[in-house]
Amino acid sequence: MGRLEDICQVAERLFSERGYHATSIRDIARKLHLQGGSLYAHISTKEDLLWEIVRRAAEQFLQAIEAVLRQESDPVARFRGAFRAHVAVIARNLPAATVYFHEWRQLSPQRREAVLQQRDLYEAMWREIVHGGIEQGVFRPVDVAMATRAVLSVANWFYQWYRPEGPRSAESIADELSELLLAGLVKEGQS
Amino acid sequence: MGRLEDICQVAERLFSERGYHATSIRDIARKLHLQGGSLYAHISTKEDLLWEIVRRAAEQFLQAIEAVLRQESDPVARFRGAFRAHVAVIARNLPAATVYFHEWRQLSPQRREAVLQQRDLYEAMWREIVHGGIEQGVFRPVDVAMATRAVLSVANWFYQWYRPEGPRSAESIADELSELLLAGLVKEGQS
Repeated sequence: MGRLEDICQVAERLFSERGYHATSIRDIARKLHLQGGSLYAHISTKEDLLWEIVRRAAEQFLQAIEAVLRQESDPVARFRGAFRAHVAVIARNLPAATVYFHEWRQLSPQRREAVLQQRDLYEAMWREIVHGGIEQGVFRPVDVAMATRAVLSVANWFYQWYRPEGPRSAESIADELSELLLAGLVKEGQS
Repeated sequence: MGRLEDICQVAERLFSERGYHATSIRDIARKLHLQGGSLYAHISTKEDLLWEIVRRAAEQFLQAIEAVLRQESDPVARFRGAFRAHVAVIARNLPAATVYFHEWRQLSPQRREAVLQQRDLYEAMWREIVHGGIEQGVFRPVDVAMATRAVLSVANWFYQWYRPEGPRSAESIADELSELLLAGLVKEGQS
């Protein structure tokens, strides 16, 4: 497994920098100082590698929000926690997040379908946070699907501009962004 | 010029679907039923083509917001107009927008620098809208840079999920998203 980790790390970087189609198994092997053929002891095809990266990223997003939903019941606390968790998944592995957002469409139809299902499940959990907030009278009666889309846009786009070497931690950026979004969601007089 | 338009249209589609590095001049020529060599009457390199697509997209974003800033002075009207204009640029040419967001980093350093400068200029106009709203006492005293980032995240991410064949017009989606964002920006009692 240690070796598969190394292969994924190199693949994430190359796929995110040059694109999936422009990266060959040989390019990945070269970075690992291996023969192209010896990679096939760990993976069968280049697409398996893309799948491994995308699948792991999708799972991390899901696990992160599930932990928050288990721990918190207050809508505002859930919102803050889930937003912070989403941003943390991206900040922890920026190349993998970039591959996830840019390259999942390059997977075979069956795997693409699996990604879409996981994404739907993830979005449903976010909609549940927004919907719960409205039900409890904490959030304004917004269109749940559209509001969730706006929130996830801000959370996702983070991968485009966040630089780990920048002056602010991902956590403090996440908290500031979620306060801005909550200002639009929380009913007047409730915050 | 007509021919360059055709070449750009095909290149936008292929670059957005498969990625810039994975698309050859020959692929583009084949879609146009031309010999690879005859494309060179119109462009010198594949990178020139990427530059043409990215440069046009950047200019469209700038022209769209400049027109709004000339016509409107009220902060809320400027916000709504600029948001709608941004979304319209993406909706009008989804493949070009995708190439702009995904592939600009593949340009040569000098051109990448030019893209960054145009993007900074564009963001500065958005910050001016937010800042003006605060100055006039219409918007809450938010962190201008972070609020602008949140707004542009929602505006940009639109390219990822918008489908022209969907039931709602880009304009009505834009208006709903900007109302959600304005709800977080406008001071209580001002809307």
